[in-house]
Amino acid sequence: MTNFSSFADPEDAPSVAEAKKEILETEYSYTERDIILYNLGVGATANELKWTYEVVSQTKIYEPNRDDEFAAIPTFGVIPQFSASSALPFDWLPNFNPAKLLHGEQFLSIKGPIPTSGDLVSSARVLEALDKGKAAAVTTIVETRDKHSGQLVFENQSTVYIRGSGGFGGRRTGTDRGPATAPNDPPQRAPDAISEERTHSSQAALYRLSGDMNPLHILPEFAAIGGFDKPILHGLCSMGIAGKHVLQAFGPFEDIKVRFAGVVYPGETLVTEMWKEGSKVIFLSKVKERDTIILASAGASLIEKCYKAKL
Amino acid sequence: MTNFSSFADPEDAPSVAEAKKEILETEYSYTERDIILYNLGVGATANELKWTYEVVSQTKIYEPNRDDEFAAIPTFGVIPQFSASSALPFDWLPNFNPAKLLHGEQFLSIKGPIPTSGDLVSSARVLEALDKGKAAAVTTIVETRDKHSGQLVFENQSTVYIRGSGGFGGRRTGTDRGPATAPNDPPQRAPDAISEERTHSSQAALYRLSGDMNPLHILPEFAAIGGFDKPILHGLCSMGIAGKHVLQAFGPFEDIKVRFAGVVYPGETLVTEMWKEGSKVIFLSKVKERDTIILASAGASLIEKCYKAKL
Repeated sequence: MTNFSSFADPEDAPSVAEAKKEILETEYSYTERDIILYNLGVGATANELKWTYEVVSQTKIYEPNRDDEFAAIPTFGVIPQFSASSALPFDWLPNFNPAKLLHGEQFLSIKGPIPTSGDLVSSARVLEALDKGKAAAVTTIVETRDKHSGQLVFENQSTVYIRGSGGFGGRRTGTDRGPATAPNDPPQRAPDAISEERTHSSQAALYRLSGDMNPLHILPEFAAIGGFDKPILHGLCSMGIAGKHVLQAFGPFEDIKVRFAGVVYPGETLVTEMWKEGSKVIFLSKVKERDTIILASAGASLIEKCYKAKL
Repeated sequence: MTNFSSFADPEDAPSVAEAKKEILETEYSYTERDIILYNLGVGATANELKWTYEVVSQTKIYEPNRDDEFAAIPTFGVIPQFSASSALPFDWLPNFNPAKLLHGEQFLSIKGPIPTSGDLVSSARVLEALDKGKAAAVTTIVETRDKHSGQLVFENQSTVYIRGSGGFGGRRTGTDRGPATAPNDPPQRAPDAISEERTHSSQAALYRLSGDMNPLHILPEFAAIGGFDKPILHGLCSMGIAGKHVLQAFGPFEDIKVRFAGVVYPGETLVTEMWKEGSKVIFLSKVKERDTIILASAGASLIEKCYKAKL
């Protein structure tokens, strides 16, 4: 178990030190249906049966234990923790306004095989809160465990920026803890692989059924308050699509990290450029129609044994 | 309550008379998420917020009690009953083989406002079994009620044809009970309204999450056994799409009936031709790419008060 006191920091403002003590626990129960719904939400298709057909129980035609065995696209790991990380209170920040919150970075570590159904428990807490002057940058950490065995399945770190909530007198720069801060600069050569995928105009309407029901992603009036022309795709949805591209090009990974650099409007085309550096895949994603980078400083660590099997 | 003995028929074969006594009850609990999933499954889009955004609880921006209040597309009424009607045993038929079963007709009657979440109970039984010589034609009836109030919400009648299961000595022609047998012949004039909609190539993969997980709709090897080139769209999904077309063109209806005349492959374009005859809409649906009728003898009864408000 993590020793929470190790995250105490003498430079923290008192409000931050208090916030770090709060632990929020939520449960998430799911079935194969939720896995398929997530997979479809990040653009899996009916031709990719390993992601859209729960298999085996209904028919013996299909061979199990093949590469195409039914599975969650591994970025599903951001789903069970979502209700925990998104419910951590931020009211200890000055002038906190949820409409001013932007998702900055996401790091997901996959700790073992992902069950295709189960009961999970997630524990969320604040890892770090930086005072950026006008804004606050808060990183939360969530451990997601099997409810029955206690086994760790996922670890997530999310960094959110809250505009207008700086000036609370906390630390101004990060303590460089953990892998979420890796720079993942693309090398100076053409990408080793490129994937292109047009999102569906109702992609966000479908993706939100996996748990993030924020009206920002469907209600034009709400998107306008956030300063957007129309509802935007979930950042974690574009991360899922890009993660799928990495998986399709290079095989399974055990962690993935992205910085959200721009927004995607449902219906736009995502282009993921990937570079393989040893067992690491560095990548970025652009919106083709606007030639804008939307995922930057992004990387995934291939699972060593799968990586070696491919050599 | 229905008097089941009224369905006894002296011309019935003993096996049919026995089968008619069997009543199967199943429960179906659902939330707004299931409604949205169904609506998306029959082609509702992110622009149709009344079908894809559960509204109100999260924001006060949206005005409730408007025409665009969140609702199920009314053909959702075939979903809660599905587990009951599809689980009725057919092993009393000679040579019964589920791969030889074809969905022939569906009649849905909507008895009142459709709750956007709730607990429903469905009671299914055999209404009629006809001996068509080589095939059997079995009509089941399902009443779906609110579990708590007991109020009737939906009535469904499904007719299935089971190839190779005739010759059991039952009745050879129908007794013309109920509205499911209305001919709904289109009048000899151009349609009053036409709707065209391209289905998504993963439409069946999405629709099946609403409950009909039959591999016929996703697994090529299984579709081949049924004699199809590739997986086919659910008949009830095309009924839902066509019902949406009727709703968009003429307003709410209180019942809808279709005969499944052909199959749709996901990705094909549905064209629904509609004729308004008094408070009845007669319609048919074609696959544009193959100029084939897939829904025939189809009709919907508009809700009188809505119909009058539109005059």
